Amino acid sequence: MNIVDLIVGKPIKTTDERAEQIGIQAGIPIFGLDALSSAAYGPEAALSLLIPLGLLGVQYIVPISAAIITLLIIVYFSYLQTIAAYPSGGGSYTVARYNLGAFPSLLAAAALLTDYILTAAVGISAGVGALVSALPALQPRTTALCVGILVIITILNLRGVHDAGVAFMVPTYLFVATLLITIFVGLVRTILSGGHPVPVTPLPPPLPITSAVTFWLLLKVFASGCTALTGVEAVSNGVKAFREPGVKNAQRTLTVIIFLLAVLLAGISYLVKVYGIAATDPGQPGYQSILSMLIAAVFGQGVFYYITIASILLVLSLSANTAFADFPRLCRAISQNNYLPHAFGHRGRRLVYTYGIVVLAALTCFLLILFRGVTDRLIPLYAVGAFLAFTLSQFGMVMHWLKNRGPHWRKSAFVNGLGGFMTGLTVLVVLVAKFIQGAWITVIFIPLLILFFRRVRRHYHRVSVATSCADPVVPASQGERPLVVVPVEHWSRISKQALEFASRLSPEIIAIHVEPGDHSELLHSEWQRYVEQPFRAEGVDPPKLVLLPSPYRFIIVPIVKYILDLSEKQPDRRIVVVIPELVEDHWYEYFLHNQRARLLEWTLLVRGNERIFTVSSPYYISE
Amino acid sequence: MNIVDLIVGKPIKTTDERAEQIGIQAGIPIFGLDALSSAAYGPEAALSLLIPLGLLGVQYIVPISAAIITLLIIVYFSYLQTIAAYPSGGGSYTVARYNLGAFPSLLAAAALLTDYILTAAVGISAGVGALVSALPALQPRTTALCVGILVIITILNLRGVHDAGVAFMVPTYLFVATLLITIFVGLVRTILSGGHPVPVTPLPPPLPITSAVTFWLLLKVFASGCTALTGVEAVSNGVKAFREPGVKNAQRTLTVIIFLLAVLLAGISYLVKVYGIAATDPGQPGYQSILSMLIAAVFGQGVFYYITIASILLVLSLSANTAFADFPRLCRAISQNNYLPHAFGHRGRRLVYTYGIVVLAALTCFLLILFRGVTDRLIPLYAVGAFLAFTLSQFGMVMHWLKNRGPHWRKSAFVNGLGGFMTGLTVLVVLVAKFIQGAWITVIFIPLLILFFRRVRRHYHRVSVATSCADPVVPASQGERPLVVVPVEHWSRISKQALEFASRLSPEIIAIHVEPGDHSELLHSEWQRYVEQPFRAEGVDPPKLVLLPSPYRFIIVPIVKYILDLSEKQPDRRIVVVIPELVEDHWYEYFLHNQRARLLEWTLLVRGNERIFTVSSPYYISE
Repeated sequence: MNIVDLIVGKPIKTTDERAEQIGIQAGIPIFGLDALSSAAYGPEAALSLLIPLGLLGVQYIVPISAAIITLLIIVYFSYLQTIAAYPSGGGSYTVARYNLGAFPSLLAAAALLTDYILTAAVGISAGVGALVSALPALQPRTTALCVGILVIITILNLRGVHDAGVAFMVPTYLFVATLLITIFVGLVRTILSGGHPVPVTPLPPPLPITSAVTFWLLLKVFASGCTALTGVEAVSNGVKAFREPGVKNAQRTLTVIIFLLAVLLAGISYLVKVYGIAATDPGQPGYQSILSMLIAAVFGQGVFYYITIASILLVLSLSANTAFADFPRLCRAISQNNYLPHAFGHRGRRLVYTYGIVVLAALTCFLLILFRGVTDRLIPLYAVGAFLAFTLSQFGMVMHWLKNRGPHWRKSAFVNGLGGFMTGLTVLVVLVAKFIQGAWITVIFIPLLILFFRRVRRHYHRVSVATSCADPVVPASQGERPLVVVPVEHWSRISKQALEFASRLSPEIIAIHVEPGDHSELLHSEWQRYVEQPFRAEGVDPPKLVLLPSPYRFIIVPIVKYILDLSEKQPDRRIVVVIPELVEDHWYEYFLHNQRARLLEWTLLVRGNERIFTVSSPYYISE
Repeated sequence: MNIVDLIVGKPIKTTDERAEQIGIQAGIPIFGLDALSSAAYGPEAALSLLIPLGLLGVQYIVPISAAIITLLIIVYFSYLQTIAAYPSGGGSYTVARYNLGAFPSLLAAAALLTDYILTAAVGISAGVGALVSALPALQPRTTALCVGILVIITILNLRGVHDAGVAFMVPTYLFVATLLITIFVGLVRTILSGGHPVPVTPLPPPLPITSAVTFWLLLKVFASGCTALTGVEAVSNGVKAFREPGVKNAQRTLTVIIFLLAVLLAGISYLVKVYGIAATDPGQPGYQSILSMLIAAVFGQGVFYYITIASILLVLSLSANTAFADFPRLCRAISQNNYLPHAFGHRGRRLVYTYGIVVLAALTCFLLILFRGVTDRLIPLYAVGAFLAFTLSQFGMVMHWLKNRGPHWRKSAFVNGLGGFMTGLTVLVVLVAKFIQGAWITVIFIPLLILFFRRVRRHYHRVSVATSCADPVVPASQGERPLVVVPVEHWSRISKQALEFASRLSPEIIAIHVEPGDHSELLHSEWQRYVEQPFRAEGVDPPKLVLLPSPYRFIIVPIVKYILDLSEKQPDRRIVVVIPELVEDHWYEYFLHNQRARLLEWTLLVRGNERIFTVSSPYYISE
């Protein structure tokens, strides 16, 4: 177990949970990476839709960003309330479940799971994509780099919340600090130049105007920019990960994250406008990201430029970590209502939900390999999931306030209602605007996931009904012994051990031998000498040796058939099949012996009934 | 099982073996494909070494081919004798084992196995390579095509010798017929033109002379051309596959194969000389194979040309089949002496040695994928194996004649001795000539394989010593009952079933429960009500409920530890662990339940001892 200890760390006692809980400092990288990193791609997503308007389009970025930041603040206030109302973790799923009912909660769950899987894949591949465009020599290694980062994130998360927080702190704070410095210096230069700063590095010439402004275009720009809001949900799901006072710490963490995000978005938008930075076409040569142009405009392409760009790449690819922090927690909440396998609820050696982490890693790995590390086409898909979950959560909170009328309940309900209305509107805009680009996949996938949830729950229900028991146990009556069957290939210490055990279980033993085998002829005389004689000497009936002919050379088939027939002929008796088994020293030695014992056991389990029990009678050659 | 029946055919009774045996007609494609196909690449291999001599080099092909055909005939006569001497299958391994001892036989076995694995990979990739050079559009699909052909050959072989023979008959006879027609027409044209026929399609200009003739060059040409002899061994291993009279049929099959091969080699060499066809460089543009040029020279590039080329491609890629016919038979012979896993000796549903076929397919698939379907670099490797085996077989036969002096034993011994000397010389030439090109891999691999054989035998010996038994069974004495341990998670029909079974095994039952679990609190009251009360009502001591604390949330670890401790404290008693198990209806339902029962069983088997028995107590929810 040493290698496992080394990679994912030594097991932590359940009672040592407190040491694993985190404060605000570690909470920001863990739950905030996804939200904060969207400062890097949100403005880009909005501005790239404005390309057809040329330099004129850049003017629209400030009002649109203002609208997005307003929505962000509404969503922020409503999640602040949600955290207070659901201190044991209140994501959209929990809120919807308590206030809106089963179906809306499953809708929220499916939307969020979809969002997280896509976030993980898109985050990693966006970071690697940016790295590869900076160092084209790495191009052929795109998939390998993606999978490598995925493995690192997975291992860090398996090591527990505490280790992951520490590991992600440096890149997160570097990212925030460099961007804040850029914004600050940019603002100072703007003021000093009277509102018309001159870029240090000249900007590429803006593309010509090819289209006029329409309301629908602006709506699409808004919807695209709203991807900046994904990840805001994260803190509300992870309240339990925070140190006491959990609610306060979670709220403070959320506040810091939203404040930083709002400042970054506002600052970047404003500077983009005053510098007149138009997006370039990512498909064309000479493409540069908005942030790259902005930093070069403010500072020139010096050391600071490269440090900032590096921290952006790092944070982009680590933004997948938020999905890893939340997905397992959400799955656990869903599994507690029997909608997902119960394994999602077990806490592993480091107190994290191992199964959820592994499943997310597997799904992300699948997407990364399927799309060979280039997941651009998945981006339109994931805003739908996130905003659908937001909307359900907000309306759930409205119902919550209507039911539990605390102080200021009207104000709270209004805030959540407004948030819900706005995010709901966004879902519609995103759906319509991006339906053809791929949002339809979400429309198909989410209902399928809901169907899966229901199937799982039905199965658990069926098992629970079938196995729940209000009958007392029936102890054995005197003299009731099972019928024992022992398959014998030839006389050996292995079969001796099995027969001796069988004779301790019951006086009625049937030995079965499939013929013709390599040792069939010898067995008869050996049976006489080593089995029948000693039993007779004790005055007991010896085991009966039954020969099973096998014209097709099958071994398992005739044995299973014989046992099933026997069980049918003796409907009142339990049958114990004692399977002699050689246990090897090393795993590779298993290839040198047939694995019939295992296969027989498995076949009897699958095709048998409740009166057929299989016993492994192990013989160890190492002793 | 229907899908299996469809793919590999219905099982065949052991007693119906005769219907599966083959005659000469089917024997030629099965055991002759490899040898016959070498008519396509043998002359090519020799001539491509003569490229530096330009058109002058072509003159040497006739004497060199004559030498190769002479060696072929010597080897033929000696295998004719081997078949008669070892009617139950006498490959190099068997002959060396009986006449030279253990080490030479293992050397022969390792050499031949290496040869067969390489033959299978090289055969398939040579065929696909030729196809791809004819249709370059298929280039990116090279590996897929190779694996596809491998799958077809594997399935045909799993279907049994009979089906494989029928399937390969048409391409084999088409190949032989078209080449014979080409040779015949070419000879007629040569005679009619007074020895100087004019090619119908003009030949490419010969390359300039860049080197002079040396004896060493001619020796290398001879060694390269000798690859035409690989595959001659095949029939001698498969005598048992032939219909009665087996020896006669096998000898006739070998005679036809060798006769056809000799005629093809002689005819091709002669025509190559009279038409003056020099090899072209395979690495350069404008490359054409010798046979392609020859057929075009005799017939022009018409319909006949394309039919012939197609049949050559087909036969090349199917030549791998000879390896599939012989490798399993050889492995079986080796496994009968305990040098390979015994599974190689079991005949599958179609009376073929399934395990050998599957292992060869897996190894070949590995090589094909590793080299991405281009195995040119493997070609130097495999002549070493084949000729080493030939040599050992020949000298083995010399020993055989010295020991069993039948009529004409002197003549027989001389034939085999001459063959052995010649093939031994060839091994040396090939080794020296091709050592750097890769023959050194064989020199490393063969000893490793021999080491493996010895390890396997040592293991079987150890197991046989440890398990062989001359002690009689010790029947149970009165009142001797095992100690039964039942892990219980919560009260359910599953645990009820296990406890009731346990109470039939022994009056002493210990129930163990790992806490804290989801149901720990409820269990205490349920235990009282459903277990203790009914036992007391019967006047029997109820099972003891032992609680195992698990600070690290492990389940299996504390249970196994408890059982091992118990077994140590009670060194004289057998412990039966009854493991309650839920059996699901469908395989996918296994993901919804933890597989702790399986894991516990497996851990106990690996870490336990001979006094610990595990019982699966199955509960079926479908009923």
